[in-house]
Amino acid sequence: MTPDEFRALGHQLIEWVAAYRERLPDLPVMSPAQPGDVRRHFASAPPEHGVPLEGLLPQLDAAVLPGITHWNHPGFFAYFPSNSALPSVLADLVAAGLGVQGMSWQTSPAATELEEVAMEWLRQLVGLPPTFSGVIQDTASTATLVALLCARERTTGHGQGRGGLQGETAPLTVYASEMAHSSVEKAALLAGLGRDNLRLLPTDDAHALRPDALEEALRTDVEAGRRPCAIVATVGSTGTTAIDPVARIGEIARAHGAWLHVDAAMAGTAMACPELRWMWEGVEQADSVVWNPHKWLGIGFDCTAYHVRDPDHLVRVMATDPSYLRTAQDGAVKNYRDWGIALGRRFRSLKVWFVLSALGVEGIRAEVRRHLALARWLAEQIDATPGWERLAPVPLQTVAFRHSPSGLEAAALDAHNLALARAINASGKAYLTPAVVKGAQILRVSIGATGTTAGDVTALWARLRDTAATLAARR
Amino acid sequence: MTPDEFRALGHQLIEWVAAYRERLPDLPVMSPAQPGDVRRHFASAPPEHGVPLEGLLPQLDAAVLPGITHWNHPGFFAYFPSNSALPSVLADLVAAGLGVQGMSWQTSPAATELEEVAMEWLRQLVGLPPTFSGVIQDTASTATLVALLCARERTTGHGQGRGGLQGETAPLTVYASEMAHSSVEKAALLAGLGRDNLRLLPTDDAHALRPDALEEALRTDVEAGRRPCAIVATVGSTGTTAIDPVARIGEIARAHGAWLHVDAAMAGTAMACPELRWMWEGVEQADSVVWNPHKWLGIGFDCTAYHVRDPDHLVRVMATDPSYLRTAQDGAVKNYRDWGIALGRRFRSLKVWFVLSALGVEGIRAEVRRHLALARWLAEQIDATPGWERLAPVPLQTVAFRHSPSGLEAAALDAHNLALARAINASGKAYLTPAVVKGAQILRVSIGATGTTAGDVTALWARLRDTAATLAARR
Repeated sequence: MTPDEFRALGHQLIEWVAAYRERLPDLPVMSPAQPGDVRRHFASAPPEHGVPLEGLLPQLDAAVLPGITHWNHPGFFAYFPSNSALPSVLADLVAAGLGVQGMSWQTSPAATELEEVAMEWLRQLVGLPPTFSGVIQDTASTATLVALLCARERTTGHGQGRGGLQGETAPLTVYASEMAHSSVEKAALLAGLGRDNLRLLPTDDAHALRPDALEEALRTDVEAGRRPCAIVATVGSTGTTAIDPVARIGEIARAHGAWLHVDAAMAGTAMACPELRWMWEGVEQADSVVWNPHKWLGIGFDCTAYHVRDPDHLVRVMATDPSYLRTAQDGAVKNYRDWGIALGRRFRSLKVWFVLSALGVEGIRAEVRRHLALARWLAEQIDATPGWERLAPVPLQTVAFRHSPSGLEAAALDAHNLALARAINASGKAYLTPAVVKGAQILRVSIGATGTTAGDVTALWARLRDTAATLAARR
Repeated sequence: MTPDEFRALGHQLIEWVAAYRERLPDLPVMSPAQPGDVRRHFASAPPEHGVPLEGLLPQLDAAVLPGITHWNHPGFFAYFPSNSALPSVLADLVAAGLGVQGMSWQTSPAATELEEVAMEWLRQLVGLPPTFSGVIQDTASTATLVALLCARERTTGHGQGRGGLQGETAPLTVYASEMAHSSVEKAALLAGLGRDNLRLLPTDDAHALRPDALEEALRTDVEAGRRPCAIVATVGSTGTTAIDPVARIGEIARAHGAWLHVDAAMAGTAMACPELRWMWEGVEQADSVVWNPHKWLGIGFDCTAYHVRDPDHLVRVMATDPSYLRTAQDGAVKNYRDWGIALGRRFRSLKVWFVLSALGVEGIRAEVRRHLALARWLAEQIDATPGWERLAPVPLQTVAFRHSPSGLEAAALDAHNLALARAINASGKAYLTPAVVKGAQILRVSIGATGTTAGDVTALWARLRDTAATLAARR
């Protein structure tokens, strides 16, 4: 493809993306595709000879687009908001065009130094103390694995340089709430610590980790000769945005010499608002903090912010120093390859720069406050309406609730709410994801798409009531 | 940013990328930036208020571009080729515009199903048997970690569900050649296996793993009560593209019940050519195979192809099943979140589709053969020129050599060649990375940028001789 051919098709695709964003409200939020619907449009073997790419555009529209679940749709209330703001799209175009590799400083100094700037901006945005240094990771799952690996190596005094976990005698243990994200369990298992050494602890009525349960678990393990390695505090759990008491957990972690990892994957963006920072009060005690600018801030996936108090420790755990990666500047610069698992690194800081510049700190705060108000409004409607039951506080933008018509047993109630969610999703007008919290099937409405207005939330609430009534009448 | 503002700036940036690619030959390959040169152009705090993004373009040109090391430059001979072909850039634009999350099938069926198609196309492209199933990972480093985690869990019978490595008694051991990529060591350490249990084995004159050394190491470990867990065979080592004997290593792995991981990160693209597939003869015995379409194939970073023989085992190691990720289609579809470490996933298969369609299998083969011929030509010049010494066979596109003027002791010879590499890089006309192989400082010329022509390699060879003569005359 020549630069001129790139120009021609590039201009077409800029128009295609703009038109896609404009007609988003008219598309079904959740893809109506059935398994195999997309795949069958493609040849089973790669083409023997190259074809002009313009020829792919009809296939993009006919095969790919109907298979897209539209995360930027105003009716997207599922999982978590993952806004890919248009400035982020443009930054990705520039990053792809430059095609750089940011593994070492020398392999593109701009990739490293703009990432330093970006992580410093993000640190200030959410009010983390200047004692933290940051790096972009792909996902919170990966960052949490990195955190537990660093915790493991701190507890064992860098046992990886000797026999690894195979050279230890007393088992290392990890603690989190039963509402912690599944990536905590995954990280503990991948780190080799074993499920037997993972404590998923009971929570209070607001679904937050109970410090007394944590202390008791620690005491039991210490008495049994095990070694507390890491505690994960969640700020904004996935199911209900529950908020663990970070300050108290931090004290407990310090008393036991355990690593404190704060998982604020969802809540991080909200920390841009000073009035919300009570949610992670005590975060300065953390050894590592993860949050996702690719959730809710408008920076396109993937962009996870990982801040640590001791970058030297992180580098010691992650670094290798083969001769073919040595450069003349080593020692004087950061080589971000040593700050995570992957060696190669994309130029993700470009999108942080573009989005923070386009929105400004005040713009980000205004958007967070707007979404929080929409969530509060929905919570108020649920509280005021007989037959509906809110199942958790709403400190952020997620409302956890269910329809509880009288006379239904637990199993029927669960089935009713699951059917309700599936009917809403099948409508194409809104998309929400159900979850099970403490054994009960709940509905989750997670508000945060850029295009979501008060009208969209009002319409969702009306649709929920209508659909629930229809389903109830059918029994 | 409105769609119309996106259109205006988007068209500008398409022109910017096209112009960038056109003037690449006039830019210095390796960035001349000094530490801090890029950073000081940026404010130390994020902007309080949003600004029009057009205002960032001068900064992009003045601050970012001089800090870029140009991986797509025709004079790029460093590390490995990492061509970000223009069709790949356009695919990234579409992916960013769609802004989808491919963690589960339901979160965008097209992301999952096009990835299935893409991995099947890539499997056929390199001639892997149909018994392999594939997934896109970010980097070979991550894929190799995934491979060793899967090996660990197979050897322990899924010990992660019990006490992890902390519940095992006999240590697990891992084997690779001393020329294996540093990611193998990193993966073994992160997997908790410990350096004491990693065997980096001696190689033959062509820098390939010696099967006799492997068998001896295995025998010693088994006799000592340790458990051989995984063997990594490298096809195209980083330093010199050495080729381990996969078929023989596969037999040895099977005899010991060890996992066979084939690291063809660099050589994978060449396997598109049937006449080169002898390089990984026996690959069908592998439990996992990794190669990098983001090296040399033109698919922009990141895109690592990871194929496994037993996807159920991979999923069992990587899966968690929280309620908030369950969907109605589970069981009938692939959920690629369970095929790796990260939960969230980008729509990377779009660029596989675009690039394979643009080039075709024949186009890819022609480009590989062109680069191999350029490397052979350079090797011939080195062989024919007194005072120059080739240090490894050239099965692929990397030439390992040094300038050996008479009368220099080993230390002075190393210093001379390191100075030679740095002088070439400082010229701005070419960029190559030195390495140390078996204690000797070598020069590496890795050929593979799309724009690199015979003229560029001829000019590099002339520059190497001239610069070497100048440096030698200065002593």
